[in-house]
Amino acid sequence: MERIERVKEAGGWLERYRHDSTSCNCPMTFSVYLPPQAQQGPVPSLYWLSGLTCTDDNFRVKAGAQRYAAELGLALVIPDTSPRGEEVPDAPERYDLGQGAGFYVDATRAPWSHHYQMYRYVTRELPALVEGALPLVPGLRSISGHSMGGHGALVCALREPGLYRSVSAFAPICHPVRCGWGEGCFSAYLGEDRRAWEAYDATCLVRAGAEPIELLIDQGTADEFLAEQLLPEALEQACAERDFPLRLRRQPDYDHSYHFIASFIGEHLAYHARALGR
Amino acid sequence: MERIERVKEAGGWLERYRHDSTSCNCPMTFSVYLPPQAQQGPVPSLYWLSGLTCTDDNFRVKAGAQRYAAELGLALVIPDTSPRGEEVPDAPERYDLGQGAGFYVDATRAPWSHHYQMYRYVTRELPALVEGALPLVPGLRSISGHSMGGHGALVCALREPGLYRSVSAFAPICHPVRCGWGEGCFSAYLGEDRRAWEAYDATCLVRAGAEPIELLIDQGTADEFLAEQLLPEALEQACAERDFPLRLRRQPDYDHSYHFIASFIGEHLAYHARALGR
Repeated sequence: MERIERVKEAGGWLERYRHDSTSCNCPMTFSVYLPPQAQQGPVPSLYWLSGLTCTDDNFRVKAGAQRYAAELGLALVIPDTSPRGEEVPDAPERYDLGQGAGFYVDATRAPWSHHYQMYRYVTRELPALVEGALPLVPGLRSISGHSMGGHGALVCALREPGLYRSVSAFAPICHPVRCGWGEGCFSAYLGEDRRAWEAYDATCLVRAGAEPIELLIDQGTADEFLAEQLLPEALEQACAERDFPLRLRRQPDYDHSYHFIASFIGEHLAYHARALGR
Repeated sequence: MERIERVKEAGGWLERYRHDSTSCNCPMTFSVYLPPQAQQGPVPSLYWLSGLTCTDDNFRVKAGAQRYAAELGLALVIPDTSPRGEEVPDAPERYDLGQGAGFYVDATRAPWSHHYQMYRYVTRELPALVEGALPLVPGLRSISGHSMGGHGALVCALREPGLYRSVSAFAPICHPVRCGWGEGCFSAYLGEDRRAWEAYDATCLVRAGAEPIELLIDQGTADEFLAEQLLPEALEQACAERDFPLRLRRQPDYDHSYHFIASFIGEHLAYHARALGR
């Protein structure tokens, strides 16, 4: 991997890397924030998965997370939201399919399957890469994300017991098999057999018996996508039926923007830091 | 003034307004962050002046200031960096002249003088407007800014004793009469007589006997504009000659970006909050 940018922030270093991804079969870009403590020795990591239309840039610029990460001694690992490039299939007329909309699945259908392997990329390739090359404690990681990335974080944690010490999400797409964004991407990437979609749906995974891990979710009540796309009540009901540990906090008047994320990112980072032993 | 946007953040409200400016003779847009305390009664204000190419949006999205403002009970008042619109003269091929580059001066030369009255706008019109319409304590205000806006903040505070309780700046243009950015704008807006420029130059104002007020300045040592445009050493020398109170902190390895601002904005807001009696 090649470092292509390095900016000092809050006493640590915000870095950007480019590497040839074996999962996605194209060059991938990601960002890492290394807190000041990483200069003394390896630190735990929080993975952040971003939402539709984002790159690795949005979170690092808008969330205000680095300052908390510096206080807590956490690294932030921020992947892109899809493979990218001229060779990579896209749906340029749509913001919710193709580049910028990988949905954190391993696609099985042409033309998507050759490049759109974001689940493998996020859960396997990227951790091995950064934990091998940077001052990160191997295996000591948590995961969070926003909207499509909140869906991704929940699915990664529910499908991979032991891979993450903790998980949280901001305004996640809780039941993608039943909303327009999820149906649009899953039918393209995974085909028309809806049973195959359930492996990438937090509500279905809880219902199907996923191993318990606490799910911390913040959801703004003025979120413009709440009723049609996010469906937290479906996840809430699935968790209630199994006594699955869910902390769903409805935050009055907050919308879907990074202003909402910035309002609560400090609490989420502190939550993950406790789970990671900081 | 018309409210055109309202987003909840950190328990308070980030709002955007549009109004017909009598100084700039065009509609102007600005943002205000009202902390939670403003729901109980009027709060003091910090004015933030942004840099070249910015609008009112950059600071509210990238600096992470709202969270501190909410803790401290400070309002943030964030004007645009110039008049704008089809009727307003511009130099579209240049980022450092015209729209987005008002330099916080009252222009005296055609074609600029009819609209480019940013000094009057920032020091007179905008405070009267927002302190009349929003829960802000009249007259209880401080000022800060970045780069061109750091220049603006220093100049406003040095020229207007008593108007601001405190002033600070991030990587300000300290001696614009001697750098390319300043020379380009001042010759256009103020004409070729360089003596007229000195009224908008912090270093010249200190030399000319400005009433003392402490200047808190953070400057990154890896700032790509430091040597050619910012010239803090000129201000430092002018202050030393007069024993003028300057706290110039050279921050090792920081650049000119909002990652630098985000790293120290909390300290600046706490500094202003003390001066404002919070």
